Amino acid sequence: MKKTDSEFVRTRYFTFAEPPCRLELKSGLSLGPATLAYETYGKLNNEKSNAILVCHALSGDAHAAGFQEGDKTAGWWDDMIGPGKALDTRLYFIICSNVIGGCKGSTGPSSINPRTGKPYAIDFPVITIADMVDAQKHLIDYFGIAKLLCVIGGSMGGMQALQWASAYPDNLIACIPIATALKHSPQQIAFDEVIRQSIMADPAWRGGNYYESGQPEKGLAVARMIGHITFMSDQSMEEKFSRKLKNEKLSFQFTDDFEVEGYLRYRGYNFVKRFDANSYLYITKAMDYFDLSGEKFMPQVKRTNVRFLVISFTSDWLYPSHQSQDIVRLLKRKHAYTTYCDLKSSYGHDAFLIEIREETKLIKNFLANVRLT
Amino acid sequence: MKKTDSEFVRTRYFTFAEPPCRLELKSGLSLGPATLAYETYGKLNNEKSNAILVCHALSGDAHAAGFQEGDKTAGWWDDMIGPGKALDTRLYFIICSNVIGGCKGSTGPSSINPRTGKPYAIDFPVITIADMVDAQKHLIDYFGIAKLLCVIGGSMGGMQALQWASAYPDNLIACIPIATALKHSPQQIAFDEVIRQSIMADPAWRGGNYYESGQPEKGLAVARMIGHITFMSDQSMEEKFSRKLKNEKLSFQFTDDFEVEGYLRYRGYNFVKRFDANSYLYITKAMDYFDLSGEKFMPQVKRTNVRFLVISFTSDWLYPSHQSQDIVRLLKRKHAYTTYCDLKSSYGHDAFLIEIREETKLIKNFLANVRLT
Repeated sequence: MKKTDSEFVRTRYFTFAEPPCRLELKSGLSLGPATLAYETYGKLNNEKSNAILVCHALSGDAHAAGFQEGDKTAGWWDDMIGPGKALDTRLYFIICSNVIGGCKGSTGPSSINPRTGKPYAIDFPVITIADMVDAQKHLIDYFGIAKLLCVIGGSMGGMQALQWASAYPDNLIACIPIATALKHSPQQIAFDEVIRQSIMADPAWRGGNYYESGQPEKGLAVARMIGHITFMSDQSMEEKFSRKLKNEKLSFQFTDDFEVEGYLRYRGYNFVKRFDANSYLYITKAMDYFDLSGEKFMPQVKRTNVRFLVISFTSDWLYPSHQSQDIVRLLKRKHAYTTYCDLKSSYGHDAFLIEIREETKLIKNFLANVRLT
Repeated sequence: MKKTDSEFVRTRYFTFAEPPCRLELKSGLSLGPATLAYETYGKLNNEKSNAILVCHALSGDAHAAGFQEGDKTAGWWDDMIGPGKALDTRLYFIICSNVIGGCKGSTGPSSINPRTGKPYAIDFPVITIADMVDAQKHLIDYFGIAKLLCVIGGSMGGMQALQWASAYPDNLIACIPIATALKHSPQQIAFDEVIRQSIMADPAWRGGNYYESGQPEKGLAVARMIGHITFMSDQSMEEKFSRKLKNEKLSFQFTDDFEVEGYLRYRGYNFVKRFDANSYLYITKAMDYFDLSGEKFMPQVKRTNVRFLVISFTSDWLYPSHQSQDIVRLLKRKHAYTTYCDLKSSYGHDAFLIEIREETKLIKNFLANVRLT
């Protein structure tokens, strides 16, 4: 059935128009003009009390749900957002914006630097998760929303959710950090560093100035392959690929003999078409810098009213469950109402995009509860 | 105290001299002339019954113990090999040879191809763990050793040990596979594939023909960094690095802010000086091809007299303990005398090089037992 025009979703753009029209960054630098790409689903009620902010992961974008004209696949969390779904668009007004530093419509290293008329490249300032959230706060202010019903996100989206609770505890009622951490462990930093090194090792990266010559394809593809290994679990790889061969016999050459090799190559080189290498550098750096452990979380608050639902997945070895348990421990110290669930799953870190049925049950009930109180 | 000449160890070279002077490979191709670099420690007894073959891991070499003239550090398993040590040179004659395909004196892709007078590069045939072991068998024959007392090795060395038991069950009394597997899981293949892709993505790799222009340094360094992450455990990284900064403050630049980043860069670029990129391709491929699971192990044998000591480490996530338990299960089906120990350690896969005290106890007792029976 053909969709009518009004059924398609559209990405919109918000450029900070309030003076000083700039975003003050944690590095001490500032960024401006700054634009956020965003989408919304559902309707904001008159009281502006039904808004939920969805925060995306490393390579996500503002297009979380529905179809844009010409799309073959729906937004990245479409299974979770829509009528009757976990984030029910009959009840809630859902906002999702692309992060600052990204490459999907928000200002990032591939944007034009107004001082030079050329892409920023690595003249773009290093940004933090806090900067991403501060930018979102401007967007929420623009909507005139004083208090978000909830901020939710998985992986880096979960970091943003935690940052919202920590920096703007009066501006949200509930918070759902999924498959995330208060800070990266050295192993997580190490994976990110190798990802960055892989990109920067490619001569086509040209110190970041590749916008005329084309992406550092090989370095970026290898970087993404590393990522993909960490997104899946040992078990889910075993179930999906085992040692299945692409052809009947081993090649005795350096081609992709095993299906898992072909899969990685495909995912790696496909990523090059859709994601800016410099954005990958900036966003991984922001994740590595993120640290809300100990006293750094909600520094002004002894006792918070923000309500939390923390979710982790048993087979997630990139953001292992003990990191979510660290979050819960810290929340308890702030006397926060906290529900925690370590969902049994074999999908590894990807589970937050896959285990929809379990997440839906948890989140629906939690939000219903939040609305009632 | 200055060492006398006779106290230094020396690498020796064995070139297959028996006609046809060639090594028949599992690919159907053959290789010749073929040379193995090897070292020995201790003395072969008159009965030639006290020989232990040590098999090295991915980036190892023949220099397992002692000092060569000018060396600042001892061989890679010196803590295990020597008078009074686990592999006691007062009792045993220890042999360690560099694998075929390597770059430490044995014939490999950096060796001269007699047909062209230039390095083989990727005209070198793809080799398997079985080929490595067949080459070692020639060396053992050359020593006139009919039966090895033991074959021992960790990681890829453990694969060789298992291959020895499977292919030459009458030529060894005991076998000690450590931190290894009967076959690579898709996750292990995936890491190896990304390692290979990283090397081949570097334009300096030049399709393998870089011997005049110099190594693909960046690609090889990134490849090794990936490896290093998998060698350590989350916990050992936490203990060694935590989130310690190299300097007082975050740089807000793409330098190595965290100690773990500096460590990886150092290890990565240091590796470039000592290891041939093409050898890394060939040896990882050999590991991925290795598969002794099910009926492929000891195909001719219903009931074996080879005695096994299988060792794994609790925090090893590259070769997780369940893979060693798969080995034990298979050995039981062959009615093999098998001792298994899952050693508690926080060092991850590196543990086989570090947990010397525990390994020494186990191996000493096991070998004493083997000698008595």
